[in-house]
Amino acid sequence: MTDRLSQQFAFLQEADRLKGVLRAGRLCDGSRFENSAEHSWHLSLYAMVLADHAPADVDMPRALKMLILHDLVEIDTGDVPIHSQNGTAHASAAQQAAEARAADRIFGLLPADQATEFRCIWEEFEANATPTAIFAKSLDRVQPVLQNLANGGGSWKDYDVTLEQIDRRVGAKIARGLPQVWPWLRAQVAAFFP
Amino acid sequence: MTDRLSQQFAFLQEADRLKGVLRAGRLCDGSRFENSAEHSWHLSLYAMVLADHAPADVDMPRALKMLILHDLVEIDTGDVPIHSQNGTAHASAAQQAAEARAADRIFGLLPADQATEFRCIWEEFEANATPTAIFAKSLDRVQPVLQNLANGGGSWKDYDVTLEQIDRRVGAKIARGLPQVWPWLRAQVAAFFP
Repeated sequence: MTDRLSQQFAFLQEADRLKGVLRAGRLCDGSRFENSAEHSWHLSLYAMVLADHAPADVDMPRALKMLILHDLVEIDTGDVPIHSQNGTAHASAAQQAAEARAADRIFGLLPADQATEFRCIWEEFEANATPTAIFAKSLDRVQPVLQNLANGGGSWKDYDVTLEQIDRRVGAKIARGLPQVWPWLRAQVAAFFP
Repeated sequence: MTDRLSQQFAFLQEADRLKGVLRAGRLCDGSRFENSAEHSWHLSLYAMVLADHAPADVDMPRALKMLILHDLVEIDTGDVPIHSQNGTAHASAAQQAAEARAADRIFGLLPADQATEFRCIWEEFEANATPTAIFAKSLDRVQPVLQNLANGGGSWKDYDVTLEQIDRRVGAKIARGLPQVWPWLRAQVAAFFP
């Protein structure tokens, strides 16, 4: 019991470092870059709010867990901005290997049963194949769009992004997980790129 | 449908401001004060990790929702540090009224059905009477203890806090929601106050 608590608190203390991982997007007021911990919180809130637009086969409690965990590996690897990836919007093999090593180390701080459970949820998110993961991934694409719209262009300006690139790198994923939401959001984005 | 999405995204954009609300506690590495959005994320992770120490009647999916929502009113009221409250560790009537007005405004941005649902979850947290709320409140007390232990005293030093005050303001709440965890944590705290 004491050992178990020691492991759990060691993991929770290590997780604190996610607050120091900066993303490419700025807050809605444009004042500073967002960190991955507050981003994860915001996505969880997105899941709660947009739940009524999700397909019926999404497991909502599991989606919340997934979004809370999904960026923890960035403590070791940092955030890789979507629009910096030469337009592929896919992680390289080297990046995937680095994230797997990070997952080994970080989830490995937990008691074995929880390490397995959390790793499994994270791998489901990464594989992006179940309805729950597809929903969670789509939220991970929606939130930066709203931020960029709010703060005057944000990472779109920084990376010289075009509407066509947003459709391909972002819109396709959102349309897959939140098919009712993308047409509405796409209209706002299109108005931003006259 | 379009109106509903407009309301939901207006709420989600307003929620972004929680990232600018600073708390009295510092990150585990002591580098800066924590904001209430990343704090809410961390508490959600605490809930997932410490779930196996929670009483059986805690509704864990609802606890996660509760922790994601619990500090949103601080967008209007700011955070009131526990150790600044003249030792009472209870919110004043004026503070409670201000938080109720904030809840009216912020949850009121949502479609009516979600405004009611979210407000209800937040009020359950504040009332601290159900097993789920008691568990969530105890996590809200545990996390700053771990931070202060990690960063060399943090808000305990800032507010000249004694071990007896921690027992009364913090320990009693933790013991109520996580009775197995407090003795372990209390031993670490006592070692910090020789």
